[in-house]
Amino acid sequence: MSDRKRIALISTGGTIEKTYDELAGVLQNRASVLDVVLATLQLDGVEIVRTPLMNKDSLDMTEQDHTLIARTAGAMAEAHDGVVVVHGTDRLAVTGERIDQLLGTPRVPIVLTGAMRPYVMRNTDASQNLTEALLAVQVLAPGVYVAMHNKVLRFPGVVKDRERGTFVRAPGS
Amino acid sequence: MSDRKRIALISTGGTIEKTYDELAGVLQNRASVLDVVLATLQLDGVEIVRTPLMNKDSLDMTEQDHTLIARTAGAMAEAHDGVVVVHGTDRLAVTGERIDQLLGTPRVPIVLTGAMRPYVMRNTDASQNLTEALLAVQVLAPGVYVAMHNKVLRFPGVVKDRERGTFVRAPGS
Amino acid sequence: MSDRKRIALISTGGTIEKTYDELAGVLQNRASVLDVVLATLQLDGVEIVRTPLMNKDSLDMTEQDHTLIARTAGAMAEAHDGVVVVHGTDRLAVTGERIDQLLGTPRVPIVLTGAMRPYVMRNTDASQNLTEALLAVQVLAPGVYVAMHNKVLRFPGVVKDRERGTFVRAPGS
Amino acid sequence: MSDRKRIALISTGGTIEKTYDELAGVLQNRASVLDVVLATLQLDGVEIVRTPLMNKDSLDMTEQDHTLIARTAGAMAEAHDGVVVVHGTDRLAVTGERIDQLLGTPRVPIVLTGAMRPYVMRNTDASQNLTEALLAVQVLAPGVYVAMHNKVLRFPGVVKDRERGTFVRAPGS
Repeated sequence: MSDRKRIALISTGGTIEKTYDELAGVLQNRASVLDVVLATLQLDGVEIVRTPLMNKDSLDMTEQDHTLIARTAGAMAEAHDGVVVVHGTDRLAVTGERIDQLLGTPRVPIVLTGAMRPYVMRNTDASQNLTEALLAVQVLAPGVYVAMHNKVLRFPGVVKDRERGTFVRAPGS
Repeated sequence: MSDRKRIALISTGGTIEKTYDELAGVLQNRASVLDVVLATLQLDGVEIVRTPLMNKDSLDMTEQDHTLIARTAGAMAEAHDGVVVVHGTDRLAVTGERIDQLLGTPRVPIVLTGAMRPYVMRNTDASQNLTEALLAVQVLAPGVYVAMHNKVLRFPGVVKDRERGTFVRAPGS
Repeated sequence: MSDRKRIALISTGGTIEKTYDELAGVLQNRASVLDVVLATLQLDGVEIVRTPLMNKDSLDMTEQDHTLIARTAGAMAEAHDGVVVVHGTDRLAVTGERIDQLLGTPRVPIVLTGAMRPYVMRNTDASQNLTEALLAVQVLAPGVYVAMHNKVLRFPGVVKDRERGTFVRAPGS
Repeated sequence: MSDRKRIALISTGGTIEKTYDELAGVLQNRASVLDVVLATLQLDGVEIVRTPLMNKDSLDMTEQDHTLIARTAGAMAEAHDGVVVVHGTDRLAVTGERIDQLLGTPRVPIVLTGAMRPYVMRNTDASQNLTEALLAVQVLAPGVYVAMHNKVLRFPGVVKDRERGTFVRAPGS
């Protein structure tokens, strides 16, 4: 009866989910932040199916992790109207390229996103980026993308610009 | 050198720009709130050209206002990569239909958006809806749309569902 | 075992507790906002005993209401280490004078506070004013006070400055 | 003409002023955060005279630093209606004891405060603690205090409870 799109939301960790340990004074990854962010958004167009796959700083990801995320995204793409992957930005592009290599053009759009500033920070980009990924996955053609900072880029050929803290097309791609 | 899209942002007023007059205890429309919202977003994909056209509660809009907004959107569509119109939700659909009638399919996407809860409220949907409109206008095919609450609908045939406070397809459209 | 002070918190309504009805576009008084504000504060010095007495815009208060609040504050002062009264600002001073007339100098401090901008607004003064009242009630000498906008004034002789939206000493007092 | 109290606000650094470096993913001390916090408060009772003395994580403070802060607070106490010192919590109590040893009972109240969670965090205690210090300094008797987490404690005999992240009376004091 509903015309909402069913979107699989695969979480893998990263800055977006980091919380602040006031006693140690450091930022750490903990569960459930993503659910808090989702609760602040009004999501009339989508029904979200949450898949908490891992909770890692992406700098700690192994080759096996990248492949696992890619295969999970591929499996979810078979059964949903779209797939969003929340990922640490440091190695988000590695996973994006991996999905593209393993799946080619998927049946439905797969959109990766992340954040440079955790949700617990006042000036977080988590809400914005998640909003963008959840909108982009509804309207893009099938393919593998990153949506972040009001910009959508299609894999392959995407890299992180570490100086500016955002994603850009790879030189020559 | 930049590959940013140039987006015309036409503001017309509405809830998104309302501020709170603490002495009178009411919500009013004032200028510049939109600039504050924009400053909180990280907009790497777009260069925004601001066009403050009017600042009205849409319930106060006349037939001439709807037509003026439509013609302005049409003119901006000739010279930019996309057009976003910020509009009061009560009569947003009237303007959307008007644009569709007057322009047919425009050269670039024209995306209308608004808010149910002003930016000055903690639980505002202004940031989310503006984020969505600015992303949608980059990736949609030419046409006239509303983007709000993580849902994109194309005109004609869109109405406001006043009970739920959001936009839906008109029955039978 | 604890050395926390036991503070009675009497709520009577007012701007501090107003919420926004997005469908009607107006601000209304609803319950439980005060509990949300309290949950955002770290209150190590006090144990709060909540007494929801009424939930009124103070402009709607009757003579009986002012007297009821005064008598309740007096009763609570007998059994607690301090009393805070959350009150609409429009007639807060009427209640403050009433308490002073009926009780003279109470056994423990009674501190009234309120807000000019509801908690649901981004720029609310509710958190600040409640923080101040809960601190002032611990350190002041017995008496009747308003604590708001980082200022403490003792009754009698306090009036609302309606132009500036804050409390001041009455001329000549 | 004004009856505002003139309060010297000495800043020394600490968590309250830490900002988040998104590229390195760490929290650092930077200037001017305190001015942002002050701008969000409505301070009708005080006129603040800012004295940025140093900007240090208090764990890095030397004996000379503690003495310098104490002497500066003492000098400011001669010429103002009160003194607030913003300080890292790790060694705040060392500075508090130092002031007490060097000055005994100062001419006006000297109130130290800090924060466990930086202002840039959503759930910061910076606004609350600064509000409390600025109110306490107006109403307390001359002496040296810490005001934080809705609790006021007088030096000497105050220590940080590192497990709970707050200040308490020293055992036996």
